[in-house]
Amino acid sequence: MKNKIRLGMVGGGKDAFIGAVHRMAARMDDKYEFVAGCLSSTPKKAKISANEINLDLNRSYPDFKTMAEEEAKREDGIEVVSIVTPNHMHSKPAIAFLEQGIHVICDKPMTATMDEAYNLYNAVKKNDLHFLITHNYSGYPLVRELKSLVQNGELGNIRSVRGSYLQGWLGLKEEDTGNNKQAEWRTDPKRSGAAGGVGDIGSHTLHLIEFITGIKLQSVAADLSTFVKGRKLDDDASIFLRMENGVKGSISVSQIAVGEENNLSISIYGEKASLKWNQENPNQAEFNKVGHHKQILTRASFTPSKGSFANVRIPPGHPEGYIEAFAQLYSDFADLIRNKNGSKDIRKILPNEDDGLHIMKFINSCVYSSNNNSKWINLDTI
Amino acid sequence: MKNKIRLGMVGGGKDAFIGAVHRMAARMDDKYEFVAGCLSSTPKKAKISANEINLDLNRSYPDFKTMAEEEAKREDGIEVVSIVTPNHMHSKPAIAFLEQGIHVICDKPMTATMDEAYNLYNAVKKNDLHFLITHNYSGYPLVRELKSLVQNGELGNIRSVRGSYLQGWLGLKEEDTGNNKQAEWRTDPKRSGAAGGVGDIGSHTLHLIEFITGIKLQSVAADLSTFVKGRKLDDDASIFLRMENGVKGSISVSQIAVGEENNLSISIYGEKASLKWNQENPNQAEFNKVGHHKQILTRASFTPSKGSFANVRIPPGHPEGYIEAFAQLYSDFADLIRNKNGSKDIRKILPNEDDGLHIMKFINSCVYSSNNNSKWINLDTI
Amino acid sequence: MKNKIRLGMVGGGKDAFIGAVHRMAARMDDKYEFVAGCLSSTPKKAKISANEINLDLNRSYPDFKTMAEEEAKREDGIEVVSIVTPNHMHSKPAIAFLEQGIHVICDKPMTATMDEAYNLYNAVKKNDLHFLITHNYSGYPLVRELKSLVQNGELGNIRSVRGSYLQGWLGLKEEDTGNNKQAEWRTDPKRSGAAGGVGDIGSHTLHLIEFITGIKLQSVAADLSTFVKGRKLDDDASIFLRMENGVKGSISVSQIAVGEENNLSISIYGEKASLKWNQENPNQAEFNKVGHHKQILTRASFTPSKGSFANVRIPPGHPEGYIEAFAQLYSDFADLIRNKNGSKDIRKILPNEDDGLHIMKFINSCVYSSNNNSKWINLDTI
Amino acid sequence: MKNKIRLGMVGGGKDAFIGAVHRMAARMDDKYEFVAGCLSSTPKKAKISANEINLDLNRSYPDFKTMAEEEAKREDGIEVVSIVTPNHMHSKPAIAFLEQGIHVICDKPMTATMDEAYNLYNAVKKNDLHFLITHNYSGYPLVRELKSLVQNGELGNIRSVRGSYLQGWLGLKEEDTGNNKQAEWRTDPKRSGAAGGVGDIGSHTLHLIEFITGIKLQSVAADLSTFVKGRKLDDDASIFLRMENGVKGSISVSQIAVGEENNLSISIYGEKASLKWNQENPNQAEFNKVGHHKQILTRASFTPSKGSFANVRIPPGHPEGYIEAFAQLYSDFADLIRNKNGSKDIRKILPNEDDGLHIMKFINSCVYSSNNNSKWINLDTI
Repeated sequence: MKNKIRLGMVGGGKDAFIGAVHRMAARMDDKYEFVAGCLSSTPKKAKISANEINLDLNRSYPDFKTMAEEEAKREDGIEVVSIVTPNHMHSKPAIAFLEQGIHVICDKPMTATMDEAYNLYNAVKKNDLHFLITHNYSGYPLVRELKSLVQNGELGNIRSVRGSYLQGWLGLKEEDTGNNKQAEWRTDPKRSGAAGGVGDIGSHTLHLIEFITGIKLQSVAADLSTFVKGRKLDDDASIFLRMENGVKGSISVSQIAVGEENNLSISIYGEKASLKWNQENPNQAEFNKVGHHKQILTRASFTPSKGSFANVRIPPGHPEGYIEAFAQLYSDFADLIRNKNGSKDIRKILPNEDDGLHIMKFINSCVYSSNNNSKWINLDTI
Repeated sequence: MKNKIRLGMVGGGKDAFIGAVHRMAARMDDKYEFVAGCLSSTPKKAKISANEINLDLNRSYPDFKTMAEEEAKREDGIEVVSIVTPNHMHSKPAIAFLEQGIHVICDKPMTATMDEAYNLYNAVKKNDLHFLITHNYSGYPLVRELKSLVQNGELGNIRSVRGSYLQGWLGLKEEDTGNNKQAEWRTDPKRSGAAGGVGDIGSHTLHLIEFITGIKLQSVAADLSTFVKGRKLDDDASIFLRMENGVKGSISVSQIAVGEENNLSISIYGEKASLKWNQENPNQAEFNKVGHHKQILTRASFTPSKGSFANVRIPPGHPEGYIEAFAQLYSDFADLIRNKNGSKDIRKILPNEDDGLHIMKFINSCVYSSNNNSKWINLDTI
Repeated sequence: MKNKIRLGMVGGGKDAFIGAVHRMAARMDDKYEFVAGCLSSTPKKAKISANEINLDLNRSYPDFKTMAEEEAKREDGIEVVSIVTPNHMHSKPAIAFLEQGIHVICDKPMTATMDEAYNLYNAVKKNDLHFLITHNYSGYPLVRELKSLVQNGELGNIRSVRGSYLQGWLGLKEEDTGNNKQAEWRTDPKRSGAAGGVGDIGSHTLHLIEFITGIKLQSVAADLSTFVKGRKLDDDASIFLRMENGVKGSISVSQIAVGEENNLSISIYGEKASLKWNQENPNQAEFNKVGHHKQILTRASFTPSKGSFANVRIPPGHPEGYIEAFAQLYSDFADLIRNKNGSKDIRKILPNEDDGLHIMKFINSCVYSSNNNSKWINLDTI
Repeated sequence: MKNKIRLGMVGGGKDAFIGAVHRMAARMDDKYEFVAGCLSSTPKKAKISANEINLDLNRSYPDFKTMAEEEAKREDGIEVVSIVTPNHMHSKPAIAFLEQGIHVICDKPMTATMDEAYNLYNAVKKNDLHFLITHNYSGYPLVRELKSLVQNGELGNIRSVRGSYLQGWLGLKEEDTGNNKQAEWRTDPKRSGAAGGVGDIGSHTLHLIEFITGIKLQSVAADLSTFVKGRKLDDDASIFLRMENGVKGSISVSQIAVGEENNLSISIYGEKASLKWNQENPNQAEFNKVGHHKQILTRASFTPSKGSFANVRIPPGHPEGYIEAFAQLYSDFADLIRNKNGSKDIRKILPNEDDGLHIMKFINSCVYSSNNNSKWINLDTI
């Protein structure tokens, strides 16, 4: 892209996992230049981190407020900021940048609390800026192709959906070891919000189901569990789903499923066909049409179906992975901001503030249902 | 076995799928001779079927009552009968044979109704005979090895379990085509009982979870669905589980999951390790111990763990399948009846009348919960 | 089958692996009764073995010669004999029975030496009896379906083939442990013949390639190795193939590939499509047509293609295995002997004396080529 | 990296596949800045391409000679050049830059002819500069971990190796369609060299075997085929290997294996254990130790073994792919040039001019052997 987008970042300092992923993603397609940051809430650490990744120290800020104000003043100030902090630090920084006219890329879930979610949602709408929430699995080429197959009617009416995201990294009490910052904040209600695993990975699972099917969740019944003694948030959950058009289903979530890494899998069953995809092997998907042999779709091997936003960088059989999928969101968001051809359609598939708020309702509905003996709860009542 | 067990069969005539499987299973290890039958409720068809499979026509009976009485009179009368009829025809024949002192092998689920289940249960207890309910997946060598690993403490305390049995054969309204007898009775409440898919395959899923873990289900919350218009029983379901020792989990069941064949999978997550097994690839299982690489157990490649009842017929890498697993139940039941060495221990792992009744409670609890807005229901209250 | 075939066996006593498999295979479809045997070359052991498996001791013979003569005299004498001894003990017993008018089922490879192979071949032709060589992998339903797909032109002209059979059970010097009889004779040139692994499993691999493609091997170049010190026969080999119609390919064989169990895989590449199958997961095959998605054929899920001899016993998703495939050869051979409808076509797909002799030429050509610096050798010159 | 390396490129204009991959790889870890290029042999197209990817047009050169000279004059001239042209255009440009003191990254195989290979090899040695040949599969984290396991003796002595690289993209005569530039030059002896598939992908396969095992090939026997009528180079091949230390093996190569994408697989069998890896699913490998269960190594889930150069960017279960592996070579090469800590060890694992020349001998030995009735040929005699 001739005219690269100037990008800033809040969070993502030394040792933070996801900040580095965002930067690799932003670099992949060469559409951004990373020029400013407030990489840590500790100003000293922010500076060290900035130095390490070669950032101009004049644009390494001690706090997000200063950063928003100073960058807004500059002619060459950032156009987009990435918020890669823990959940409770999404809303305020995001709003600060929005109010300075700066587009926002925000980690999921949108915020820690419903109140914060509404505030942020309103700020996006008020300022009429672009907001991207990084449900990154929707950037995988095959996921987008599956969405397109559904849209083109290949499955007929959808009947039932099954999603599952199983991890084992919280099988022990990692939050007490003193060397796992992510475990600490993810299991802390003040920083993470009302839910643990459901907020962290249940959110991705629901987004993916809705993204592929184009059908929205209406109500849930949930049974959340905390298996590790003394942990403050759920680390395992089973969720029933009732969606628009009579679609039903379930989501299974765990962070204490020892032996599992990032086992996110989605199955969509329609009247005429079904689709299955697993994130750990993302370059293929199963497509089963009634009366036909099982078909394996492999990334890049097929002509994308009509309207597909599947983008492939390399030939079939050469695997693309997680970073590429993440990069796709950045790439598309850049095109949206630059108002490139097709950006209207791209907008429709990028996870935005509406998704962010809706998924916050999902998370909080699950917690409410579980606290009330798994009774059914409509998302609109949260 | 020198002294073969004389076996009879009720049901299993022409075109019936499961009767032929029972006979292949009984033949595999050469411990039975098949000598009498009432292969159809239609006497003429019974005769034709008997003739086709080479049965002595003098011992092909027009009804189960006559068969039970006549066989009991003979010195060389049957010692065991296999009941392979639709669910509503389990209880009466089984009781008739039990009352003549004949052991019973019975298809699952135990009966169509709870009342019938109690009657049959009581008849077994009263007559002090052996009763085998063919939860055949428990005969797979690796399933038994997994049970043994759990028993030997390899997983530590179990935390959560996930089971799923997905089929697609009822995606269309097969019961109306006129050429699918199994679809007809499976979707008919009079013949099948209160549940469709949950009774047919949900029952297997729960048995397998309990078999491997040795932990019993206490309560369920369920959401049963009927997706095919006009169908009278559930064809898709999501179920929450609460078990002894604080174990929690979920079961997912479908018979409208087009593209699925017999996708039965079980995952068991403990504090120290997890186990995963899938029926469609039954010669291997995944064993993940915290701090170790993922391990793949393959049938016959390992020294069975202490106390394992895993029996292998052929070397590793040569697949054994469904018929072999089924045969294992027949083989073990023969040893039990002949009171062979170890038959006391074998008794503990063969699915019996207690399992049969318990699983009937599970099925009926799921239906009750689903009819009551998915509320939690304790199995003891059914 | 009303009129069961009377079956005898030479070899297959206590502790012998393959004899028990033959008997399970013969029982599966209830077309044979097993009535006579010479189960060991040691008369005492023969008797003990006969007793253990419930054979009438009057028909347990001390040697194959007596057995052939005595059984031929009886009105109810055996009609078929299974020869399940080491290779050097195939030819003489087989000829003895053939000369008494008894059909023969014989383990592979046909014999230990080329001379024996010609003798046996001529005896079959002279006596005009049926001869089955148990290349059992050709009994798998999907293997037969693949053959049919090729025959129906789905692949267009075949170009190249790849076969591989990898085992690890001879990674150590098992033949010296004193408790591995199979290892002893398989590595002994006097009992096994000129080749070790190439004869034992290379033979299966070639048969399967020729069975599926219908195309015959013409010449080979081979590099045989013996990795375990002091072993007398090859335990690893690479082989180039040149076949009719310009088809080329390779076979890879090992018995020292530690970690491998029975990893037999076949790939067939044609102009229009390719097929892939692996014995360790025999219920599915890959079918790739140019311009189409990858397709997975699953056993029993499809209408068999025109002319297919694929026989399925149970529904899709319930795995059938090695014993079932073996049983299929027995079942088909029974139909052939009873001259059932279609037996003419069945004859064409059952491995017979022509295959037996041809594969002996393959084995001995490989040894010759390897001993001559891997030079190309035409099978007709052996 | 603070002090980014200034990078130029020869080739890689519009529509070229591999040039774009090189640029994504160079960007991923932010150690390079791309500042100059001669992106096409057609000056006009070079300019258009340069413009498209935002290159300073003053540093877009009409030919590699000018580029080498001009860049050498600049104080901020390039330090490294990537040569991503067809094989016959590797040697001259590479030498031109080497003579200006510029390090070279070069696509594989090294050159089209043996003469060119020696010239380039000598130029590297004479100028004492760094030379990287992009055998990119050696950058996959698990491949490097496998190398380390071998080095640490986990396999004991290695016995046999098997490599296979199967593609189907040349199943039809793509070189005649007029819209497949890669097919055109890859099948053209003038641009590609003496071999087709063996040069293109056989080269990768051998490198990977040697990389993991640390053992060098000594001699080959080969059977190369051309299945597509009128094609000028091999499109399918079988190769026997004899390596140092008595290791033997085989390589199978095809570009007409329809249905295959980039099916590159490697198996290494030692006395104590075996390793298996497949490029299409590169985040896991199989590790089979005698007497242990099969183990699955997953990227990032384990503590790398001693001395491993496996670098992981993201947590286990989130797949890394082809671009990341490619990026690893760029990243390591940057560290080598900047003489970072450990660069001495890094040098040992980066594919260099020695590998380049050795693999040229392999390619040409295969062609020679195949032209001489598959006779064994020692690489040193080429």
